[in-house]
Amino acid sequence: MAARRTAAHCPAPGIGSSDGCIASGASRPMEPIVPPTERTRLRRLHERGHYDRATIHGILDAQPLAFVGWVVDGRPVVTPTLQWREGDRVYWHGSSASRALRHQDGQEVCLTVAILDGFVLARSGFHHSVNYRSVMLFGRAFRVADPEEKRERLRQFIERLFPGRYATLRADRPQELKATTVLGMEIGEASAKIRSGPPKDEEEDYALPIWAGVLPVRMVTGEPEADPRGLAGLEPPEYVRSFRLG
Amino acid sequence: MAARRTAAHCPAPGIGSSDGCIASGASRPMEPIVPPTERTRLRRLHERGHYDRATIHGILDAQPLAFVGWVVDGRPVVTPTLQWREGDRVYWHGSSASRALRHQDGQEVCLTVAILDGFVLARSGFHHSVNYRSVMLFGRAFRVADPEEKRERLRQFIERLFPGRYATLRADRPQELKATTVLGMEIGEASAKIRSGPPKDEEEDYALPIWAGVLPVRMVTGEPEADPRGLAGLEPPEYVRSFRLG
Repeated sequence: MAARRTAAHCPAPGIGSSDGCIASGASRPMEPIVPPTERTRLRRLHERGHYDRATIHGILDAQPLAFVGWVVDGRPVVTPTLQWREGDRVYWHGSSASRALRHQDGQEVCLTVAILDGFVLARSGFHHSVNYRSVMLFGRAFRVADPEEKRERLRQFIERLFPGRYATLRADRPQELKATTVLGMEIGEASAKIRSGPPKDEEEDYALPIWAGVLPVRMVTGEPEADPRGLAGLEPPEYVRSFRLG
Repeated sequence: MAARRTAAHCPAPGIGSSDGCIASGASRPMEPIVPPTERTRLRRLHERGHYDRATIHGILDAQPLAFVGWVVDGRPVVTPTLQWREGDRVYWHGSSASRALRHQDGQEVCLTVAILDGFVLARSGFHHSVNYRSVMLFGRAFRVADPEEKRERLRQFIERLFPGRYATLRADRPQELKATTVLGMEIGEASAKIRSGPPKDEEEDYALPIWAGVLPVRMVTGEPEADPRGLAGLEPPEYVRSFRLG
Protein backbone atom coordinates (compact mmCIF):
# COMPACT_ATOMS: atom_id res chain seq x y z
CA MET A 1 0.00 0.00 0.00
CA ALA A 2 1.24 3.47 -0.81
CA ALA A 3 2.13 5.65 2.13
CA ARG A 4 -0.14 8.59 2.65
CA ARG A 5 0.98 11.44 0.46
CA THR A 6 1.90 14.72 2.03
CA ALA A 7 0.92 18.11 0.73
CA ALA A 8 4.35 18.40 -0.89
CA HIS A 9 3.58 15.41 -3.13
CA CYS A 10 0.15 16.60 -4.07
CA PRO A 11 -0.25 16.97 -7.82
CA ALA A 12 -2.44 19.54 -9.49
CA PRO A 13 -6.16 18.74 -9.23
CA GLY A 14 -7.21 15.76 -11.27
CA ILE A 15 -3.74 15.07 -12.63
CA GLY A 16 -2.10 11.70 -12.27
CA SER A 17 -4.32 10.51 -9.49
CA SER A 18 -7.88 9.54 -8.76
CA ASP A 19 -7.92 11.92 -5.83
CA GLY A 20 -7.58 15.62 -6.45
CA CYS A 21 -6.06 18.26 -4.25
CA ILE A 22 -7.60 21.53 -3.28
CA ALA A 23 -6.51 24.61 -1.45
CA SER A 24 -9.18 24.59 1.22
CA GLY A 25 -8.47 28.05 2.58
CA ALA A 26 -5.71 30.60 2.82
CA SER A 27 -4.63 29.35 6.24
CA ARG A 28 -4.43 25.64 5.32
CA PRO A 29 -1.92 23.87 3.10
CA MET A 30 -2.92 21.94 0.00
CA GLU A 31 -4.36 18.62 1.18
CA PRO A 32 -5.13 15.38 -0.65
CA ILE A 33 -8.87 15.15 -0.81
CA VAL A 34 -11.48 12.72 -2.02
CA PRO A 35 -13.45 14.86 -4.46
CA PRO A 36 -17.08 15.19 -3.29
CA THR A 37 -19.72 13.65 -5.51
CA GLU A 38 -23.48 13.93 -5.73
CA ARG A 39 -23.67 11.24 -3.04
CA THR A 40 -21.01 12.50 -0.65
CA ARG A 41 -21.33 16.28 -0.69
CA LEU A 42 -23.15 17.53 2.39
CA ARG A 43 -26.13 19.65 1.41
CA ARG A 44 -26.88 20.88 4.92
CA LEU A 45 -24.56 21.73 7.83
CA HIS A 46 -21.66 22.12 5.43
CA GLU A 47 -19.28 22.92 8.26
CA ARG A 48 -19.55 19.29 9.41
CA GLY A 49 -18.35 17.85 6.11
CA HIS A 50 -14.73 16.83 5.50
CA TYR A 51 -13.25 15.39 2.35
CA ASP A 52 -9.54 15.31 3.10
CA ARG A 53 -7.92 11.90 3.33
CA ALA A 54 -6.23 12.64 6.65
CA THR A 55 -9.59 13.13 8.36
CA ILE A 56 -11.28 10.20 6.62
CA HIS A 57 -8.37 7.86 7.35
CA GLY A 58 -8.17 9.00 10.95
CA ILE A 59 -11.80 8.12 11.65
CA LEU A 60 -11.53 4.75 9.89
CA ASP A 61 -8.42 3.94 11.92
CA ALA A 62 -10.14 4.93 15.17
CA GLN A 63 -13.24 2.76 14.71
CA PRO A 64 -12.92 -0.85 13.52
CA LEU A 65 -16.67 -1.50 13.86
CA ALA A 66 -18.22 -0.84 10.44
CA PHE A 67 -21.69 -1.23 8.96
CA VAL A 68 -21.80 -2.46 5.39
CA GLY A 69 -24.93 -1.73 3.40
CA TRP A 70 -25.82 -3.92 0.44
CA VAL A 71 -28.88 -4.58 -1.65
CA VAL A 72 -30.62 -7.90 -2.16
CA ASP A 73 -33.79 -8.12 -4.25
CA GLY A 74 -33.89 -4.34 -4.26
CA ARG A 75 -34.00 -4.16 -0.48
CA PRO A 76 -31.31 -2.86 1.90
CA VAL A 77 -29.35 -4.96 4.39
CA VAL A 78 -26.87 -3.53 6.89
CA THR A 79 -24.30 -5.96 8.28
CA PRO A 80 -21.98 -5.08 11.15
CA THR A 81 -18.37 -6.20 10.71
CA LEU A 82 -14.82 -5.09 11.50
CA GLN A 83 -12.92 -3.08 8.90
CA TRP A 84 -9.29 -2.20 8.60
CA ARG A 85 -7.54 0.31 6.35
CA GLU A 86 -4.44 -0.16 4.24
CA GLY A 87 -3.51 3.00 2.37
CA ASP A 88 -6.44 4.09 0.25
CA ARG A 89 -8.41 0.87 0.69
CA VAL A 90 -10.53 -0.63 3.42
CA TYR A 91 -11.05 -4.36 3.93
CA TRP A 92 -13.44 -6.58 5.84
CA HIS A 93 -13.76 -10.35 6.05
CA GLY A 94 -15.80 -13.30 7.16
CA SER A 95 -16.73 -16.86 6.41
CA SER A 96 -16.72 -17.80 2.74
CA ALA A 97 -20.16 -19.29 3.46
CA SER A 98 -21.49 -15.90 4.58
CA ARG A 99 -24.54 -14.84 2.62
CA ALA A 100 -23.62 -11.19 3.14
CA LEU A 101 -20.10 -11.51 1.73
CA ARG A 102 -21.26 -13.56 -1.25
CA HIS A 103 -23.84 -10.88 -2.09
CA GLN A 104 -21.44 -7.97 -1.59
CA ASP A 105 -18.70 -9.40 -3.83
CA GLY A 106 -18.50 -7.23 -6.96
CA GLN A 107 -21.53 -5.18 -5.97
CA GLU A 108 -22.18 -1.60 -4.89
CA VAL A 109 -21.86 -1.24 -1.13
CA CYS A 110 -21.85 1.59 1.38
CA LEU A 111 -19.50 1.20 4.32
CA THR A 112 -20.18 3.48 7.27
CA VAL A 113 -18.38 3.92 10.58
CA ALA A 114 -19.37 6.24 13.38
CA ILE A 115 -17.88 7.15 16.72
CA LEU A 116 -20.20 8.61 19.33
CA ASP A 117 -18.19 11.24 21.21
CA GLY A 118 -20.87 12.69 23.45
CA PHE A 119 -24.44 13.71 24.11
CA VAL A 120 -25.08 17.41 23.60
CA LEU A 121 -27.69 18.69 26.04
CA ALA A 122 -29.22 21.98 24.95
CA ARG A 123 -31.84 24.26 26.48
CA SER A 124 -34.56 23.17 24.07
CA GLY A 125 -35.35 19.70 22.80
CA PHE A 126 -34.77 20.87 19.25
CA HIS A 127 -31.12 21.75 19.81
CA HIS A 128 -30.15 18.53 21.55
CA SER A 129 -27.55 16.72 19.48
CA VAL A 130 -24.59 14.39 19.64
CA ASN A 131 -20.91 14.89 19.07
CA TYR A 132 -19.61 12.30 16.66
CA ARG A 133 -17.19 11.46 13.89
CA SER A 134 -18.43 9.40 10.96
CA VAL A 135 -17.30 8.26 7.54
CA MET A 136 -19.35 6.99 4.61
CA LEU A 137 -17.67 5.16 1.74
CA PHE A 138 -19.41 4.29 -1.50
CA GLY A 139 -18.14 1.91 -4.13
CA ARG A 140 -17.95 -1.56 -5.50
CA ALA A 141 -16.60 -4.31 -3.25
CA PHE A 142 -13.87 -6.54 -4.67
CA ARG A 143 -12.76 -9.94 -3.46
CA VAL A 144 -9.16 -10.73 -2.58
CA ALA A 145 -8.80 -13.95 -4.55
CA ASP A 146 -5.12 -14.84 -4.31
CA PRO A 147 -4.46 -16.99 -1.20
CA GLU A 148 -1.12 -15.32 -0.44
CA GLU A 149 -2.60 -11.84 -0.76
CA LYS A 150 -5.48 -12.96 1.41
CA ARG A 151 -3.06 -14.20 4.05
CA GLU A 152 -1.22 -10.86 3.96
CA ARG A 153 -4.44 -8.84 4.29
CA LEU A 154 -5.56 -10.93 7.28
CA ARG A 155 -2.10 -10.59 8.80
CA GLN A 156 -2.40 -6.81 8.45
CA PHE A 157 -5.82 -6.91 10.10
CA ILE A 158 -4.42 -8.58 13.20
CA GLU A 159 -1.21 -6.54 13.18
CA ARG A 160 -3.06 -3.23 13.01
CA LEU A 161 -5.00 -4.15 16.13
CA PHE A 162 -2.27 -6.07 17.98
CA PRO A 163 1.22 -5.25 16.62
CA GLY A 164 3.51 -8.24 16.87
CA ARG A 165 0.84 -10.86 17.54
CA TYR A 166 0.56 -12.50 14.13
CA ALA A 167 4.10 -13.95 14.18
CA THR A 168 3.37 -15.63 17.52
CA LEU A 169 0.29 -17.49 16.27
CA ARG A 170 -0.13 -21.01 14.94
CA ALA A 171 0.30 -20.58 11.17
CA ASP A 172 -2.76 -20.17 8.93
CA ARG A 173 -3.78 -23.36 7.16
CA PRO A 174 -4.71 -23.45 3.48
CA GLN A 175 -8.22 -24.65 4.30
CA GLU A 176 -8.66 -21.79 6.77
CA LEU A 177 -7.72 -19.25 4.10
CA LYS A 178 -10.11 -20.98 1.72
CA ALA A 179 -12.88 -20.77 4.30
CA THR A 180 -12.29 -17.04 4.70
CA THR A 181 -13.43 -14.36 2.28
CA VAL A 182 -11.72 -10.97 2.30
CA LEU A 183 -13.48 -8.09 0.58
CA GLY A 184 -12.12 -4.62 -0.05
CA MET A 185 -13.08 -1.30 -1.53
CA GLU A 186 -11.26 1.81 -2.64
CA ILE A 187 -11.61 4.98 -0.58
CA GLY A 188 -12.67 6.72 -3.78
CA GLU A 189 -16.07 8.19 -3.01
CA ALA A 190 -16.13 9.18 0.62
CA SER A 191 -16.96 11.84 3.14
CA ALA A 192 -16.46 12.41 6.82
CA LYS A 193 -18.87 14.22 9.08
CA ILE A 194 -17.92 15.66 12.45
CA ARG A 195 -19.75 17.51 15.17
CA SER A 196 -17.94 18.70 18.26
CA GLY A 197 -18.28 21.30 20.95
CA PRO A 198 -21.04 22.66 23.18
CA PRO A 199 -24.73 23.05 22.30
CA LYS A 200 -25.80 25.80 19.93
CA ASP A 201 -28.92 27.30 21.42
CA GLU A 202 -31.21 30.11 20.35
CA GLU A 203 -29.67 33.36 21.59
CA GLU A 204 -32.52 34.14 23.99
CA ASP A 205 -32.40 30.62 25.52
CA TYR A 206 -28.93 31.13 27.02
CA ALA A 207 -30.58 33.18 29.78
CA LEU A 208 -32.67 30.18 30.93
CA PRO A 209 -31.59 28.44 34.16
CA ILE A 210 -31.18 25.04 32.48
CA TRP A 211 -28.00 23.00 32.77
CA ALA A 212 -26.55 22.58 29.28
CA GLY A 213 -23.36 21.04 28.07
CA VAL A 214 -21.80 17.85 26.79
CA LEU A 215 -21.76 14.41 28.36
CA PRO A 216 -18.66 12.86 26.76
CA VAL A 217 -18.72 9.21 25.66
CA ARG A 218 -15.79 7.02 24.81
CA MET A 219 -14.87 3.39 24.32
CA VAL A 220 -12.47 1.87 26.81
CA THR A 221 -10.96 -1.53 27.33
CA GLY A 222 -11.19 -3.43 30.58
CA GLU A 223 -8.82 -5.87 32.23
CA PRO A 224 -7.77 -8.65 29.82
CA GLU A 225 -9.61 -11.89 30.63
CA ALA A 226 -7.32 -14.88 30.13
CA ASP A 227 -8.83 -17.95 28.49
CA PRO A 228 -9.71 -20.36 31.34
CA ARG A 229 -8.07 -23.07 29.24
CA GLY A 230 -4.85 -21.08 28.80
CA LEU A 231 -1.51 -22.46 29.95
CA ALA A 232 -0.31 -21.36 33.36
CA GLY A 233 2.26 -18.57 33.51
CA LEU A 234 1.24 -16.73 30.33
CA GLU A 235 0.81 -13.00 30.87
CA PRO A 236 -1.19 -10.67 28.59
CA PRO A 237 1.25 -9.25 26.02
CA GLU A 238 2.13 -5.56 26.04
CA TYR A 239 -0.02 -4.93 22.93
CA VAL A 240 -3.03 -6.15 24.90
CA ARG A 241 -2.24 -4.19 28.06
CA SER A 242 -1.54 -0.96 26.17
CA PHE A 243 -4.39 -1.31 23.66
CA ARG A 244 -6.37 1.89 23.05
CA LEU A 245 -9.47 2.45 20.96
CA GLY A 246 -10.27 5.71 19.22
CA MET B 1 -47.19 1.45 23.53
CA ALA B 2 -48.15 -1.94 24.82
CA ALA B 3 -46.19 -3.20 27.77
CA ARG B 4 -43.92 -6.13 27.06
CA ARG B 5 -45.88 -9.35 27.49
CA THR B 6 -44.63 -11.92 29.91
CA ALA B 7 -44.52 -15.63 29.31
CA ALA B 8 -47.75 -16.00 31.24
CA HIS B 9 -49.58 -13.82 28.71
CA CYS B 10 -48.12 -15.51 25.69
CA PRO B 11 -50.83 -16.86 23.42
CA ALA B 12 -50.55 -19.94 21.27
CA PRO B 13 -48.22 -19.48 18.30
CA GLY B 14 -49.58 -17.12 15.70
CA ILE B 15 -52.83 -16.44 17.53
CA GLY B 16 -54.03 -12.95 18.28
CA SER B 17 -50.72 -11.26 17.70
CA SER B 18 -48.20 -10.47 15.03
CA ASP B 19 -45.53 -12.04 17.17
CA GLY B 20 -45.72 -15.73 17.89
CA CYS B 21 -44.47 -17.61 20.91
CA ILE B 22 -42.35 -20.70 20.96
CA ALA B 23 -41.08 -23.08 23.52
CA SER B 24 -37.40 -22.69 22.81
CA GLY B 25 -36.22 -25.63 24.90
CA ALA B 26 -37.32 -27.79 27.78
CA SER B 27 -35.45 -25.66 30.29
CA ARG B 28 -36.82 -22.29 29.10
CA PRO B 29 -40.31 -20.86 29.48
CA MET B 30 -42.46 -19.84 26.55
CA GLU B 31 -41.21 -16.47 25.32
CA PRO B 32 -42.66 -13.88 22.95
CA ILE B 33 -40.60 -14.11 19.80
CA VAL B 34 -40.34 -12.37 16.46
CA PRO B 35 -40.85 -15.25 14.04
CA PRO B 36 -37.70 -15.72 11.90
CA THR B 37 -38.05 -15.09 8.19
CA GLU B 38 -35.91 -15.88 5.16
CA ARG B 39 -33.99 -12.66 5.87
CA THR B 40 -33.55 -12.97 9.61
CA ARG B 41 -32.93 -16.67 10.25
CA LEU B 42 -29.25 -17.35 10.86
CA ARG B 43 -27.96 -19.97 8.45
CA ARG B 44 -24.59 -20.42 10.13
CA LEU B 45 -23.58 -20.25 13.82
CA HIS B 46 -27.16 -20.86 14.84
CA GLU B 47 -26.26 -20.65 18.51
CA ARG B 48 -25.63 -16.93 18.08
CA GLY B 49 -29.16 -16.20 16.84
CA HIS B 50 -31.93 -14.91 19.09
CA TYR B 51 -35.49 -14.11 18.14
CA ASP B 52 -37.11 -13.38 21.49
CA ARG B 53 -38.33 -9.86 22.07
CA ALA B 54 -36.64 -9.54 25.46
CA THR B 55 -33.22 -10.02 23.87
CA ILE B 56 -33.94 -7.82 20.85
CA HIS B 57 -35.39 -5.04 23.01
CA GLY B 58 -32.53 -5.23 25.47
CA ILE B 59 -29.91 -4.67 22.78
CA LEU B 60 -31.87 -1.82 21.18
CA ASP B 61 -32.23 -0.17 24.58
CA ALA B 62 -28.51 -0.54 25.29
CA GLN B 63 -27.29 1.07 22.07
CA PRO B 64 -28.84 4.29 20.79
CA LEU B 65 -26.41 4.53 17.86
CA ALA B 66 -28.09 2.89 14.86
CA PHE B 67 -27.24 2.47 11.20
CA VAL B 68 -30.15 2.78 8.81
CA GLY B 69 -29.75 1.23 5.38
CA TRP B 70 -31.82 2.51 2.48
CA VAL B 71 -31.72 2.26 -1.27
CA VAL B 72 -31.49 5.11 -3.74
CA ASP B 73 -31.26 4.46 -7.47
CA GLY B 74 -30.75 0.78 -6.65
CA ARG B 75 -27.67 1.51 -4.54
CA PRO B 76 -27.25 1.18 -0.78
CA VAL B 77 -26.71 4.02 1.66
CA VAL B 78 -26.04 3.56 5.39
CA THR B 79 -26.78 6.54 7.61
CA PRO B 80 -25.80 6.68 11.29
CA THR B 81 -28.44 8.09 13.61
CA LEU B 82 -29.82 7.66 17.12
CA GLN B 83 -32.77 5.33 17.64
CA TRP B 84 -35.07 4.85 20.56
CA ARG B 85 -37.60 2.09 21.27
CA GLU B 86 -41.19 2.40 22.43
CA GLY B 87 -42.83 -0.98 22.88
CA ASP B 88 -42.61 -2.88 19.62
CA ARG B 89 -41.47 0.07 17.53
CA VAL B 90 -38.24 1.94 17.03
CA TYR B 91 -37.97 5.56 16.01
CA TRP B 92 -35.31 7.89 14.67
CA HIS B 93 -35.42 11.53 13.63
CA GLY B 94 -33.66 14.38 11.92
CA SER B 95 -34.11 17.51 9.92
CA SER B 96 -37.14 17.55 7.63
CA ALA B 97 -34.69 18.73 4.96
CA SER B 98 -32.60 15.55 5.36
CA ARG B 99 -32.19 13.69 2.10
CA ALA B 100 -31.89 10.40 4.01
CA LEU B 101 -35.15 10.82 5.91
CA ARG B 102 -37.06 11.92 2.83
CA HIS B 103 -35.86 8.84 0.97
CA GLN B 104 -36.55 6.45 3.85
CA ASP B 105 -40.13 7.62 4.40
CA GLY B 106 -42.45 4.81 3.30
CA GLN B 107 -39.60 2.70 1.97
CA GLU B 108 -37.93 -0.56 2.93
CA VAL B 109 -35.12 0.03 5.39
CA CYS B 110 -32.79 -2.09 7.49
CA LEU B 111 -31.94 -0.71 10.91
CA THR B 112 -28.91 -2.29 12.58
CA VAL B 113 -27.32 -1.69 15.95
CA ALA B 114 -24.21 -3.37 17.32
CA ILE B 115 -22.37 -3.26 20.59
CA LEU B 116 -18.74 -4.32 20.57
CA ASP B 117 -18.13 -6.15 23.86
CA GLY B 118 -14.58 -7.34 23.35
CA PHE B 119 -11.78 -8.60 21.15
CA VAL B 120 -11.35 -12.37 21.25
CA LEU B 121 -7.70 -13.34 20.87
CA ALA B 122 -7.25 -16.94 19.84
CA ARG B 123 -4.19 -19.08 19.19
CA SER B 124 -4.58 -18.94 15.40
CA GLY B 125 -5.54 -16.00 13.24
CA PHE B 126 -8.54 -17.93 11.97
CA HIS B 127 -10.21 -18.18 15.38
CA HIS B 128 -9.79 -14.55 16.35
CA SER B 129 -13.20 -13.00 16.80
CA VAL B 130 -15.13 -10.35 18.66
CA ASN B 131 -17.74 -10.52 21.37
CA TYR B 132 -20.75 -8.45 20.42
CA ARG B 133 -24.50 -8.00 20.58
CA SER B 134 -26.31 -6.88 17.45
CA VAL B 135 -29.84 -6.48 16.15
CA MET B 136 -31.07 -6.19 12.58
CA LEU B 137 -34.58 -4.93 11.84
CA PHE B 138 -36.21 -5.08 8.44
CA GLY B 139 -39.34 -3.27 7.40
CA ARG B 140 -40.96 -0.23 5.94
CA ALA B 141 -40.33 3.12 7.60
CA PHE B 142 -43.36 5.25 8.41
CA ARG B 143 -43.46 8.95 9.16
CA VAL B 144 -45.04 10.37 12.31
CA ALA B 145 -47.20 13.05 10.69
CA ASP B 146 -49.34 14.41 13.53
CA PRO B 147 -47.51 17.30 15.28
CA GLU B 148 -48.72 16.29 18.75
CA GLU B 149 -47.67 12.69 18.24
CA LYS B 150 -44.33 13.93 16.92
CA ARG B 151 -43.88 16.06 20.03
CA GLU B 152 -44.65 13.05 22.22
CA ARG B 153 -42.20 10.78 20.36
CA LEU B 154 -39.42 13.38 20.65
CA ARG B 155 -40.25 13.84 24.33
CA GLN B 156 -39.89 10.08 24.80
CA PHE B 157 -36.55 10.15 22.99
CA ILE B 158 -35.14 12.68 25.46
CA GLU B 159 -36.85 11.11 28.49
CA ARG B 160 -35.48 7.66 27.72
CA LEU B 161 -31.93 9.04 27.72
CA PHE B 162 -32.35 11.67 30.45
CA PRO B 163 -35.40 10.99 32.62
CA GLY B 164 -36.95 14.19 33.88
CA ARG B 165 -35.15 16.54 31.51
CA TYR B 166 -37.87 17.29 28.97
CA ALA B 167 -40.13 19.13 31.44
CA THR B 168 -37.26 21.46 32.35
CA LEU B 169 -36.61 22.57 28.76
CA ARG B 170 -37.85 25.58 26.84
CA ALA B 171 -41.03 24.34 25.13
CA ASP B 172 -40.91 23.03 21.56
CA ARG B 173 -42.08 25.57 19.00
CA PRO B 174 -44.46 24.64 16.16
CA GLN B 175 -41.84 25.56 13.55
CA GLU B 176 -39.28 23.32 15.31
CA LEU B 177 -41.65 20.36 15.15
CA LYS B 178 -42.29 21.16 11.49
CA ALA B 179 -38.57 21.24 10.81
CA THR B 180 -38.15 17.81 12.41
CA THR B 181 -39.06 14.51 10.79
CA VAL B 182 -39.66 11.46 12.97
CA LEU B 183 -39.61 8.05 11.30
CA GLY B 184 -40.49 4.74 12.87
CA MET B 185 -40.69 1.05 12.08
CA GLU B 186 -42.29 -1.98 13.64
CA ILE B 187 -40.09 -4.58 15.29
CA GLY B 188 -41.76 -7.15 13.08
CA GLU B 189 -38.94 -8.80 11.17
CA ALA B 190 -35.90 -8.89 13.41
CA SER B 191 -33.08 -10.93 14.80
CA ALA B 192 -30.40 -10.54 17.41
CA LYS B 193 -26.93 -12.03 17.21
CA ILE B 194 -24.68 -12.48 20.21
CA ARG B 195 -21.19 -13.84 20.73
CA SER B 196 -19.70 -14.01 24.19
CA GLY B 197 -17.05 -15.92 26.07
CA PRO B 198 -13.48 -17.04 25.46
CA PRO B 199 -11.91 -18.07 22.14
CA LYS B 200 -12.80 -21.41 20.61
CA ASP B 201 -9.56 -22.88 19.36
CA GLU B 202 -8.69 -26.11 17.64
CA GLU B 203 -8.25 -28.75 20.33
CA GLU B 204 -4.54 -29.27 19.62
CA ASP B 205 -3.84 -25.51 19.72
CA TYR B 206 -4.67 -25.23 23.43
CA ALA B 207 -1.24 -26.72 24.17
CA LEU B 208 0.54 -23.81 22.46
CA PRO B 209 2.25 -21.23 24.71
CA ILE B 210 0.25 -18.31 23.26
CA TRP B 211 -1.68 -15.89 25.45
CA ALA B 212 -5.35 -16.15 24.53
CA GLY B 213 -8.41 -14.55 26.00
CA VAL B 214 -10.74 -11.61 25.74
CA LEU B 215 -9.94 -7.91 25.83
CA PRO B 216 -13.26 -6.43 27.00
CA VAL B 217 -14.54 -3.20 25.46
CA ARG B 218 -17.25 -0.93 26.77
CA MET B 219 -18.61 2.57 26.34
CA VAL B 220 -18.27 4.90 29.28
CA THR B 221 -19.19 8.49 29.95
CA GLY B 222 -16.72 11.08 31.13
CA GLU B 223 -17.13 14.12 33.35
CA PRO B 224 -20.00 16.35 32.15
CA GLU B 225 -18.66 19.44 30.38
CA ALA B 226 -20.78 22.47 31.20
CA ASP B 227 -21.55 24.85 28.33
CA PRO B 228 -19.07 27.77 28.66
CA ARG B 229 -22.04 30.07 28.11
CA GLY B 230 -24.08 28.41 30.88
CA LEU B 231 -25.33 30.44 33.84
CA ALA B 232 -23.24 30.36 37.00
CA GLY B 233 -24.33 28.01 39.77
CA LEU B 234 -26.01 25.34 37.62
CA GLU B 235 -24.85 21.83 38.48
CA PRO B 236 -25.17 18.80 36.16
CA PRO B 237 -28.49 17.10 36.99
CA GLU B 238 -28.57 13.66 38.59
CA TYR B 239 -29.66 12.04 35.28
CA VAL B 240 -26.44 13.33 33.72
CA ARG B 241 -24.18 12.31 36.59
CA SER B 242 -25.69 8.81 36.87
CA PHE B 243 -26.00 8.20 33.10
CA ARG B 244 -24.89 4.73 32.00
CA LEU B 245 -24.61 3.31 28.49
CA GLY B 246 -25.06 -0.33 27.67
